Amino acid sequence: MNPRLKKIQDNLSSLKIDALLITTPENIRYLSGFTGSSGVIIITEHQSIFLTDSRYAAQSKDEVSGFKIKTYKKQIEEVASLINKLKHKRIGFEAKGLTYETYRKLKSLLRNKKLIPVSNGIDKIRSTKDTEELKVIKKAIHLSSIGFDTAMNCITPGALERDVAFAAEMAMRKNGAQGLSFDIIVASGKRAAFPHGKASQKKIRRSEMVIVDLGAQYNGYHSDETCTFVVGKPDKRQKKVYHAVKDAHDKAIEAVSPGVKASYIDSVARDFIQHAGYGKYFGHGTGHGVGLQVHERPTISPYNDEILEEGMVFTIEPGIYIPDWGGVRIEDMVLVTRDGCEVLTEVSKEMKVL
Amino acid sequence: MNPRLKKIQDNLSSLKIDALLITTPENIRYLSGFTGSSGVIIITEHQSIFLTDSRYAAQSKDEVSGFKIKTYKKQIEEVASLINKLKHKRIGFEAKGLTYETYRKLKSLLRNKKLIPVSNGIDKIRSTKDTEELKVIKKAIHLSSIGFDTAMNCITPGALERDVAFAAEMAMRKNGAQGLSFDIIVASGKRAAFPHGKASQKKIRRSEMVIVDLGAQYNGYHSDETCTFVVGKPDKRQKKVYHAVKDAHDKAIEAVSPGVKASYIDSVARDFIQHAGYGKYFGHGTGHGVGLQVHERPTISPYNDEILEEGMVFTIEPGIYIPDWGGVRIEDMVLVTRDGCEVLTEVSKEMKVL
Repeated sequence: MNPRLKKIQDNLSSLKIDALLITTPENIRYLSGFTGSSGVIIITEHQSIFLTDSRYAAQSKDEVSGFKIKTYKKQIEEVASLINKLKHKRIGFEAKGLTYETYRKLKSLLRNKKLIPVSNGIDKIRSTKDTEELKVIKKAIHLSSIGFDTAMNCITPGALERDVAFAAEMAMRKNGAQGLSFDIIVASGKRAAFPHGKASQKKIRRSEMVIVDLGAQYNGYHSDETCTFVVGKPDKRQKKVYHAVKDAHDKAIEAVSPGVKASYIDSVARDFIQHAGYGKYFGHGTGHGVGLQVHERPTISPYNDEILEEGMVFTIEPGIYIPDWGGVRIEDMVLVTRDGCEVLTEVSKEMKVL
Repeated sequence: MNPRLKKIQDNLSSLKIDALLITTPENIRYLSGFTGSSGVIIITEHQSIFLTDSRYAAQSKDEVSGFKIKTYKKQIEEVASLINKLKHKRIGFEAKGLTYETYRKLKSLLRNKKLIPVSNGIDKIRSTKDTEELKVIKKAIHLSSIGFDTAMNCITPGALERDVAFAAEMAMRKNGAQGLSFDIIVASGKRAAFPHGKASQKKIRRSEMVIVDLGAQYNGYHSDETCTFVVGKPDKRQKKVYHAVKDAHDKAIEAVSPGVKASYIDSVARDFIQHAGYGKYFGHGTGHGVGLQVHERPTISPYNDEILEEGMVFTIEPGIYIPDWGGVRIEDMVLVTRDGCEVLTEVSKEMKVL
């Protein structure tokens, strides 16, 4: 018995649907184990069907368990025909998982069915991680640490941002990372004012700060962490900005606990940075869930009043970005525990002078 | 003046819309040059606005030209508010570019506007490549050749599929590839019956065939090509299957010309494989467009009656996959020229014994 599948099946009636069509690759992987890029799942209380195209026929037999496996040539048409054969009427679908175009096409092919968008289905279940998932996430985080160690060794006056990123990637890959969570960010000097400044051909210079933001993929799961380093002796302003971010980061982490609102965690970091006088330089949210997607539930932002639960894994990543000067971001991954939180990130966030 | 933008602006009235909301990263990059992951474009006949979040404020100033740049905190809300301020009523959006959820949310926020799905807008324009794009695609293809050369050097009895893939990737990256088009496929022996068998821990053995399918990213553009190699002397069946695929591939390429239907090209390859007795082992389409996306218009399949045009770039990739035996796929990238086609792929597709 597949316990994740069972959870969804038991949940159908509370979602007021008879069947659920699942189309996002992450949710398909979560439920079935399938790692390919083309698949669809249909679940009713007593049935679970996995559909894919012929390229994945053999692979799906190897990977997918707990599902009846079928292949399609024309995806939407054959999914519609299968749904039309169900005796059920209320067909849920992932509101984030169908484009408007696919939705319209599917709708036009269904006979006497009601298509019902589902927004808080599997994403919500996925936001708390089970033991197996935590093991894999910790492995991805360990791989990040190897990336940071390598980056620290490479960052030196004269090194190119791109070469630092490449070395960090290679180190993670050689140690088992199956990919990157995203293109590695290495943003030095004034470029550190770009919160998402991908590693460029720029040379790193003495006295610059360097933001390194990276993550590793392992068995479908991700890590996502950021360090800001200083090349040579930091000046007063660099120290001040670094410590404002570091303190905001630490205070936000201290505030993490089950039962607390996500927006409250954001406000702890944001208020601190505001009081330190840098409020207008912190433009993004404080964090986001990490798992099968690099960005998933829960978002840690002023706009999300979701209550934190034990088992959630997310980032805490305040930052200060000052145009034409540079920036600092410090990002850890944390796990909500029964009575607080555990910092999963292995790399220390004390100011590191390289 | 941005000629791509102008083309879209001139096209609005024929699409029966006053404004177009663009949300897919590829189309945003195509029109504006923006390489980040969070952005939205709104175009009217006389206005062009690019919106992004604060993380990309500085980066967008560097990259984007021909647009008024704005930043948002709450994407959908602020895009809706901007649209509400336009005097225009008919607002086109990319039918593939909004999820059902985003569509519903946007619709609920608009006042007195009509949201009109657009299916053949920018994708259609993007399907024919200009000189600048061809230059970049050729560079990506050249990087693939380096990957194949390296793979050929690494494939030997006892080598792991994964190590072959890793070596090929490293070679491409060191030579300037900014990423892979997709996880490299190295599928040997029986695994070659999986058309999308990602490189695994399997050892390659003497007498096996090995499918290697890879592509490089360069300045946002992709390559995508496949070779099938034989380790040691091929047996009769291996030769027969290889030549059936090779001949189908060559005949399909010979048939490529402006004015011909995409489905006709597919039928040329498919009929040939059918007559060779392997029809049921060729389950996928014959090819797909390649550009800013690895899979884009035009699809070369039995279901696409689109007429080929000069400047289109796509793959020709027939295959035969025999369960419990193995498989062969041969994939070139071709450019439709004024009176036929040019094979862009550099690697020869004669049977290679390693």
